[in-house]
Amino acid sequence: MAVLLAMYPHPEDAERFDRYYWDTHVPLARKMPGLKTFEVSKGTVQAGDGSSPYYLIARLTWDSPESMQDSLNSEEGKAAGADVANFAPEGTTVLLFDEERTL
Amino acid sequence: MAVLLAMYPHPEDAERFDRYYWDTHVPLARKMPGLKTFEVSKGTVQAGDGSSPYYLIARLTWDSPESMQDSLNSEEGKAAGADVANFAPEGTTVLLFDEERTL
Repeated sequence: MAVLLAMYPHPEDAERFDRYYWDTHVPLARKMPGLKTFEVSKGTVQAGDGSSPYYLIARLTWDSPESMQDSLNSEEGKAAGADVANFAPEGTTVLLFDEERTL
Repeated sequence: MAVLLAMYPHPEDAERFDRYYWDTHVPLARKMPGLKTFEVSKGTVQAGDGSSPYYLIARLTWDSPESMQDSLNSEEGKAAGADVANFAPEGTTVLLFDEERTL
């Protein structure tokens, strides 16, 4: 399974972030072809040291790395990718990787 | 669903990290009560800017935040948590959060 993690630091205006994220970005991202799951953190993201380095973490999955690449390179993928600049705080990190289950 | 993300930067000795991780840490972590899934990145973790800030990302899930907390506070959870210091590179980040599916 191929995974995209989007990790957003705390925005200056959380209400504005939430509104844009849920009303505009999530609908755009959900249009990406082949996208299988889309999960979003709910409430506080807490680090092991007690800090909270991120405001929100999203996890999107596809069946394979090839499917993910095709999806990100599609018109819908490019639109969703370009939209990130419209709301993501500085320091936002996107990670792409393949994943295997061990349990 | 409650999630624990463990994000490990590149170790000095990848072979030694892999050996310890798979032979010692994963078996310890899998003993945690209530653990539902345990997924591990396979191959390169690539950031959107082309860099690779992490060597390995693990994702563990439980049915609820309460179940996760009980599990981490159990003898098995404490043993797995204490073991992280035995192999994790400096800068290792552990994140805990609740998550909801939007697709």
